Parts: sequence; C-alpha cells; structure tokens
Amino acid sequence: MFHHPKIRNALLFFLVMAITIFFIIGRESSHRQRDTIVEQAPIEAPDTYTPNELGVCTGRRWPADVPPLYVITPTYRRAEQIPELTRLAQTLLLVDSLVWIVVDDADEPTPAVVNYLQERRICHVYLIARMPAKFQKLKNPPRGVANRRKALEWLRKHAKKGGAFYFADDDNTYDTRLLDEIRHTKKVSMFPVGLVTQLGLSSPIVRNGKIVGFYDGWIANRKFPVDMAGFAVSVDFLNARPEADMPFLVGQEETKFLESLNFTLDDVELLSSNATTIRVWHTKTKKNNKAILGAKKLNYKDSNINFLQEQIWR
Amino acid sequence: MFHHPKIRNALLFFLVMAITIFFIIGRESSHRQRDTIVEQAPIEAPDTYTPNELGVCTGRRWPADVPPLYVITPTYRRAEQIPELTRLAQTLLLVDSLVWIVVDDADEPTPAVVNYLQERRICHVYLIARMPAKFQKLKNPPRGVANRRKALEWLRKHAKKGGAFYFADDDNTYDTRLLDEIRHTKKVSMFPVGLVTQLGLSSPIVRNGKIVGFYDGWIANRKFPVDMAGFAVSVDFLNARPEADMPFLVGQEETKFLESLNFTLDDVELLSSNATTIRVWHTKTKKNNKAILGAKKLNYKDSNINFLQEQIWR
Repeated sequence: MFHHPKIRNALLFFLVMAITIFFIIGRESSHRQRDTIVEQAPIEAPDTYTPNELGVCTGRRWPADVPPLYVITPTYRRAEQIPELTRLAQTLLLVDSLVWIVVDDADEPTPAVVNYLQERRICHVYLIARMPAKFQKLKNPPRGVANRRKALEWLRKHAKKGGAFYFADDDNTYDTRLLDEIRHTKKVSMFPVGLVTQLGLSSPIVRNGKIVGFYDGWIANRKFPVDMAGFAVSVDFLNARPEADMPFLVGQEETKFLESLNFTLDDVELLSSNATTIRVWHTKTKKNNKAILGAKKLNYKDSNINFLQEQIWR
Repeated sequence: MFHHPKIRNALLFFLVMAITIFFIIGRESSHRQRDTIVEQAPIEAPDTYTPNELGVCTGRRWPADVPPLYVITPTYRRAEQIPELTRLAQTLLLVDSLVWIVVDDADEPTPAVVNYLQERRICHVYLIARMPAKFQKLKNPPRGVANRRKALEWLRKHAKKGGAFYFADDDNTYDTRLLDEIRHTKKVSMFPVGLVTQLGLSSPIVRNGKIVGFYDGWIANRKFPVDMAGFAVSVDFLNARPEADMPFLVGQEETKFLESLNFTLDDVELLSSNATTIRVWHTKTKKNNKAILGAKKLNYKDSNINFLQEQIWR
C-alpha cells in the first residue's frame, strides 16, 4: 500500500506535520522553562503568600528546585536606617528565592521604610514589633528580640514547607555565596563570623569534620557561644518545635533560642567550606546624632533643602 | 496542474517545510537577541581593555547604548577591608556597564583583595598606589589621594570615549539608581549626600532649577563645598583637561580637583531628581583593632581555627 504515491505522499505530509508540531512544542516548553529562570519582568510571589503580604517581587528568580531563604532583619528608626536597608537590600537583590522579613521596632509603620521596600519591589514582608515597655527603660535592653519573635510567628503561620531562615541584622555584611548555602540547611547550620569581639572571629572549632568546641571572645556559660549571624535553621525543623522561642535575655538570645530547638552538635551542618572561610562579618556602623539645621543665611523655603531635610533624622 | 494529486501533495509538503523552517529560524533569532540581554554566563570585557587589565567579567550586561560607569574606590589594608569591598561589590554587581577601579594604598597587591575580585569576576581594574612617605607621618594625612590620582592616570590612558567616573569610597552606601544616573553625566554632575557633618546632609542649594549655593556643615573657604561622594565627571570632560588633578591637601581635595576642571555652576547637571532625594550616604564603619589570639585551652593546630585566623587582621 505504501507504494501507492497518493497514500505515501499523504503519510509523508502527516509525518512532517507531526515532527514539526512535536519540535515546536518541545522548543516552546524548553524556552518557557528557561524564561522562568532568567525572567527580569515582575513576577508574582509564590502562591502561599497573599499579595498583601508579599506584594509583587522583582528581579530575582524563583527556580522550582531552589528552597526559599527567609532573611529576618530587625530594624529601628535612626539616621542610618534607610542607608543600612539600602545596602542590605542590594545584597539580597542578588539572591534567588528569597523572602526578606523586615521587622521594625516601631509603634506604626515607618513611611520611609515602606516606601523604599515598595519602590525596589524586593520580595518582602514588612512587620512592626515594638520592644515591650518594661525593657525600653533598661540601659542595655534586649534589642531585636521582639522583632525576631514576630518574624518566627509569621514563619510558623505562613512559610510553606522547605527552606531555611537566618537572622540578619541590617548592619552586618553578608557574602551572597553564604546565603545561597544557608537555604539548604536541613536542621541547624553553623559557620564562622568575622569582626566579633577582640578575637575578630566567632566560630565552631572543627576537628576531623566534628565540632569540638567554640571559638568566641565571650564564652560565658553559654551552651552555644555563637553570634546571631553565625547560624541558620530549617523552617521544617522550627515548625516541628512549636515551643521554641527567643527570650528577652541580653547576651543569652542565641544560646537560649538554639537550646529551645533541642538538638545536639551531631545535628549541626557546617557551612562556609566546613567552617574554614569567613563569609559574614559583624560590621558596625557609627551612629550619627539627629541632624541639626544649617544656618539660615539663605531662605531654604523655595529650595530643595526642605525636601531633603524631611528625609533625614532630626 | 495543481489538480494532479502527486504534484499537489509534493507542493503542500514543501510549503509546510518552508513555513516550519521560517518559523524556527524566526524564533531562534528572537531568543538569541533576548539571551544577549539577560546573559548570566561570563562575558568578555569590552575590547578596548586588555584581558590582563580587566579579565573576564561576570553577571552584568554591557548594552551597546549604555555609557560605561567607572567607579573609583580607594582602599587600604585593615580588618574591615574585605567586608567593605564585599558589601560594595554586591551593590556594583547590580549595575550594567560598570568598571570598578579598586586602588589599594599598599606597597604590593593585597592577596585577599586580588582573590576576592577574581573570585567574584566583577569587571575590575586593581591598582596599587602608596601614599607618599612625607604624608604618612602626618596625624591627619590626605587619605585616598594617591589612589584617586592613580585611577585618573589609568582613565586617561585606557578609558574609551563616553561615560563618567565617580569617586566611591568603600564604606559609603550607594543606591544603584543613582549610579545608573551618574553614567550619563555630560560635564560635571552634583547631588545630595546624606550623613555628612552634623547637618546630616551635603547638597547644592537649588532654586528654580539653578544652584544658588551649597548646604554643608563645613563651607570654609571652599569654592565647591561638596563631599567626595557628591559629584561625578564625564570621562571626555576630564580628558579635555590634561592639567586637572587632585592635590594632597586635606579638606581641599574635592574643591581643588573641581576647580582644576575649570567649569562654572551653569555647567553642572543636577541628579537625584534635581537634588531633592538622597541616594548616597556617608556611612562610617567602626574600626576594629587587630585581632588578638584566643586562649589556647584547645590546640587549634589540627582545627579550622588556624585557617580562619589567617583570614583576619592580626
């Protein structure tokens, strides 16, 4: 029957059509896959978050096989707040599948912060959490604790399965390569932090791949003498421990939170090349006083100076 | 003749093939075009620079119609050097068509800096320029001047036509949106800087789109009382003024360099929304002392601590 020219040509025609359609569909789907990865246009947040919580995120990719990284940043109103958040945001904008949980120690949202986060369209959650009144009077209050507790509450309520979270203060310096490692934390991970105490370093001491102690300028009686920036925790691990929390205890925040997670040193994963490289630093920014007003030799009222003065902390 | 089934079928076959080939080629070229823009793989530096000077750059784009931006960063060896350069690099990695000129005040290249720049494969030039011996003894020496002069020398020799340069110290905070404006500077541009002096601000005073003075906590007798981070200059404008240079005069670096460029306030372009927004801040990082060694209760010799101690400033 294939020798009949009419049938043979018709079969050839359908064969070419089939191959063509198959080829086009194949290319289409492979391109669609690549587009998801390199997409630069605004992308919607993952569907477990409501648009109100995360809004529209820009820039970075959400590849299906990359677990989300939740970066928890306590902040508070001061002259350096917007610059510090700017500098940190520009680090986080380089990182895929990232949700930035910014928690402001304020009674109401800080307009400049809200505006900045929305302008840059970074995937974020903005929350406020005021330090309880009884601690505010202290000379050395437990800073950032109310913020971090609020973020943990959000995580327990909204984070989907998978991924890890990391407490990242707004004045530290983070190498993006560390952040990309942190997201794979299965239980609890630890790694060295630079510029901590007079030793210039805080790190687990590792011998033969095992943690045998901690190197830190302030060991005290802490079970886990680590810096807040020196560990990360899996979201699932946290969610399996509903009692875990961070107490309002200055200097004991890290160790007590880690103790409440109930794990042993054998559970700890070492990051930063088995804790041999420093990829996060406890940089500290000098505080500026509230700005004073310049001499009014010129009347600034019709000038740009009034707009600018509104943007600084006075 | 089209009624002959054999010929009709053969024609149909070729028609389908032609459409298919046309379709595939069309898609291919449109995808190739898009790929050039979002390319994430390593790209070669522009061909006016030798590979030795710029090496291979990664990440960002070099669109043909975007003028290059040269960011000149003086730096020096200290505990905060790598964290500061990390933080700044991660801002610059977000910016297209950028050459980072890092000039180290050192007698020989600092291995940690060279390694970092190569690891991150950011488009960079690494130069060294030691402060002349006679200034080193001073209590308040002219910091960063030898570095900036070295960078100007490199620009005059190697920069191609077009684009602008900007003096960006390694501890300041830069919003990438300002950097993308700066590259279009035609002659000299100026803009507000936050966290400068007790006024918390340094800016040209602008009324009806014209500069009528300067708002700065330290006017002194400076013709241009601006901060080092408050102006940028076009490469062509610099190259047309071979005598322009920055003197080793503490506090007079900005104004004397600008005066040597020989222009008037009418030539100045205002950036940051006509100087009404702050998009660069003179953040200052607290200095750490050289690290001391931790008590040797444990022998660190077989542990990770020795590797880490080599990475910190002692």
